[in-house]
Amino acid sequence: MRPVVPLLLASILLVTSASTCAQARDEATRIPDAAMDTAAQLREAALASDVGYRVVESLTTEIGPRPGGSEADARAVAWAEAKFHELGFDRVWKEEVTFTRWVRRSERAEVLGEFAQPLVLTALGGSPGGTVEGEVVRFADLESLQAAPAGSLAGKIAYVDHVMARARDGSGYGPASRIRSRGPSAAIRAGAIGYLMRSAGTDSHRNPHTGGTRFEEGLEPIPSAALSVPDAEQLTRLLVLGKPINVRLALDCGWDGMATSHNVIGEITGSERPDEVVLIGGHLDSWDLGTGAIDDAAGIGITMAAGKLIGDLPRAPARSIRVVAFANEEHGLSGGRGYAVAHADEIALHQIAAESDFGAGRIYAYASSCAPQAAQADARIAEALAPLGIEHMPGDGGPGADISVIAANGVAWASLRQDGTDYFDLHHTADDTLDKVDPEALAQNVAAYAVFAYLAAEAEGTWGSAPKAASAP
Amino acid sequence: MRPVVPLLLASILLVTSASTCAQARDEATRIPDAAMDTAAQLREAALASDVGYRVVESLTTEIGPRPGGSEADARAVAWAEAKFHELGFDRVWKEEVTFTRWVRRSERAEVLGEFAQPLVLTALGGSPGGTVEGEVVRFADLESLQAAPAGSLAGKIAYVDHVMARARDGSGYGPASRIRSRGPSAAIRAGAIGYLMRSAGTDSHRNPHTGGTRFEEGLEPIPSAALSVPDAEQLTRLLVLGKPINVRLALDCGWDGMATSHNVIGEITGSERPDEVVLIGGHLDSWDLGTGAIDDAAGIGITMAAGKLIGDLPRAPARSIRVVAFANEEHGLSGGRGYAVAHADEIALHQIAAESDFGAGRIYAYASSCAPQAAQADARIAEALAPLGIEHMPGDGGPGADISVIAANGVAWASLRQDGTDYFDLHHTADDTLDKVDPEALAQNVAAYAVFAYLAAEAEGTWGSAPKAASAP
Repeated sequence: MRPVVPLLLASILLVTSASTCAQARDEATRIPDAAMDTAAQLREAALASDVGYRVVESLTTEIGPRPGGSEADARAVAWAEAKFHELGFDRVWKEEVTFTRWVRRSERAEVLGEFAQPLVLTALGGSPGGTVEGEVVRFADLESLQAAPAGSLAGKIAYVDHVMARARDGSGYGPASRIRSRGPSAAIRAGAIGYLMRSAGTDSHRNPHTGGTRFEEGLEPIPSAALSVPDAEQLTRLLVLGKPINVRLALDCGWDGMATSHNVIGEITGSERPDEVVLIGGHLDSWDLGTGAIDDAAGIGITMAAGKLIGDLPRAPARSIRVVAFANEEHGLSGGRGYAVAHADEIALHQIAAESDFGAGRIYAYASSCAPQAAQADARIAEALAPLGIEHMPGDGGPGADISVIAANGVAWASLRQDGTDYFDLHHTADDTLDKVDPEALAQNVAAYAVFAYLAAEAEGTWGSAPKAASAP
Repeated sequence: MRPVVPLLLASILLVTSASTCAQARDEATRIPDAAMDTAAQLREAALASDVGYRVVESLTTEIGPRPGGSEADARAVAWAEAKFHELGFDRVWKEEVTFTRWVRRSERAEVLGEFAQPLVLTALGGSPGGTVEGEVVRFADLESLQAAPAGSLAGKIAYVDHVMARARDGSGYGPASRIRSRGPSAAIRAGAIGYLMRSAGTDSHRNPHTGGTRFEEGLEPIPSAALSVPDAEQLTRLLVLGKPINVRLALDCGWDGMATSHNVIGEITGSERPDEVVLIGGHLDSWDLGTGAIDDAAGIGITMAAGKLIGDLPRAPARSIRVVAFANEEHGLSGGRGYAVAHADEIALHQIAAESDFGAGRIYAYASSCAPQAAQADARIAEALAPLGIEHMPGDGGPGADISVIAANGVAWASLRQDGTDYFDLHHTADDTLDKVDPEALAQNVAAYAVFAYLAAEAEGTWGSAPKAASAP
């Protein structure tokens, strides 16, 4: 099973484009004043609590890297169940998902000949193993590679040298990740035997950024990898010398059979409408290179802590708070897809969903899919988030990756946008470790998720979730 | 042949302690006004020139990593000869040195058992290869390890977890590098089968810092390595959980027979006293992990460029300017020691020497060994350096590592101290690459070395070099 990212991106865009808030109607969803008072107390309690950080510390330290389907991933599932219990959730369960596992064993590259030297790179997720040697042909962007005539790269290694832009909203990642997902297939069509790209990242360290790629049907996959940014710059300087540069690329990695993992779920039972659910979550798996602190132990810590703090209230909110630790997000969104299948008949019961999967930076904006009748409640949530430095940006953002599947099926979503200025310095690298998480910024995230989830669960009226014509799960 | 660092450090301290400037006497060494005018022009020309940066770029790009005695080291020697010729030096030659080569092939470590996960580390230079498994015993500092009773670490892996302090003058490196050089022997005496240390570094990246260690005579060497800072923090957090933590450490590295390399020397012939020499230089070799941009392509670029700019003057200075690219500094100071032996009878002809081997940060202080009669000339050099933001700090600093050998034998020295605040973020890591070099700061260094070398070569009178009782070369 390969990642179906383009399909899902299309779904996300579809949802996003329908997300501008209309005026509230008479039957408007509303949030009582008493709930606003409780939300304010919850906000302050969250800012003063380190429970979110402790969850991140525990997961990254005790489990470490936990790629989907690995032995460590199984330990992470047990860890999540235990942690939900420890945090006092009312119900804890897991839901099985299966997928094809991809594994990295070793990777190595070197410039050959007159300028012989090693290059630091990492295989793209989904790449086959193999050793290839060939002359490097540089392309400044994906379009240039896509324009290369068939056969023009026969026996050669294609190299795309795009410099990713740094941005608070992470908007540089779209073009950079397309080079990762589409570049290898374009290279194959031109005859290339190997594929290299400058990492989709904004740092200057010898820590290359991995990430999933895919090969179009009918093409024979080739070894595909990302150079660290300094290594990409080095390769480009070598090419500027004007002589042919030959590189040997040796990857030992590949798909490794079917694996099983689990979405792990903890719930605070609603006091009035327990069957109706406000869903928050992150993904439990990580890439193998780092300990997945910002991607996505942070999301797990933020949402587990938000649920725990709501559970600590004297009275549970009207609806249930469901925290989902999704399985195997990195290799095909297995958890998000599995959840959507398992809960396909419960669209309307999922009142609204929000996922934290963009690191551990402060949240600066709030928006939601905002059904017309929910505009007033949406504005009240924004009002309760404002003291956290969060701006209301209706129409902005979209659902996180895992919840994009249920969102495409009709579940309303909220977006709590994190500052991603530095996120791509670390994303998908060995450098994604606990020391990069700022406890204060994390607590601000916990406060925001707690406020959002509590108020969404207390709102009288609905958030507009309703089944759509079935979308691909 | 093992590094003899402690012996050499003793020599450096001996020289340093005698370095306070006395009052100038009647027979004072002096610098003519015309030379000061030329030095000012040289300074401005250097600030406007990128020749130093281009040398660093060329060495790090075309050769890359160049550990002493490697194939790349041989290419670096040829590169240096060609570069001296290209830059217009009057005389270019090389002097052979031989030493024992140490090589790194692979390295890997992992926590075993309940918290299984990989750890990122790098072997210390001089470590033997081997695979060991054992429980980790943490020590907060070297003294605690040295106090461990014999046999108390039998079958275990010693781990020293010292946090290196960041400082402009690099003063945190002394304690940290002692843990590297002395820790393994202390661990062996207590019975340990392996040695781990938190990197001697100030960064937070998964890029461990290598560096030479040594084993005392009569002890059987054990695999010894440095964890990256995040990995050390991770290991410490695991130990705090209170359960035994077992680690497997697998190093494939070791001494690899005798090798030959060369000091490569370029000279601008003096116009009046060509046999008298002002020596500047850096070291040509690097560690294997990075491309040795700040350690020490920067020193090579700074001093080659300074010599080239002096060579471009309409009239050469009175004395010769000798630029030395020393061989194999990292594994035993082979070049500095070889140079001292080869030129043992020329102490007095070496008027004064200065080495650049502390990165590419701006120079903030100038000092010299300052023989009494040279105080006036010393002050004039300081005056010419002041517009570069360089302060005169008589009595401060010491000779660089390679020239410490000739300094111990009686050659006068100067110290142009670089800002080392960030140096140990990169030092001896894979991250020591060209992108870390600031071209403007490098040009400031070139200007300072050009001004110093030119004025030292123009000074009338001597700098006080005179043979001492022979010190160990």
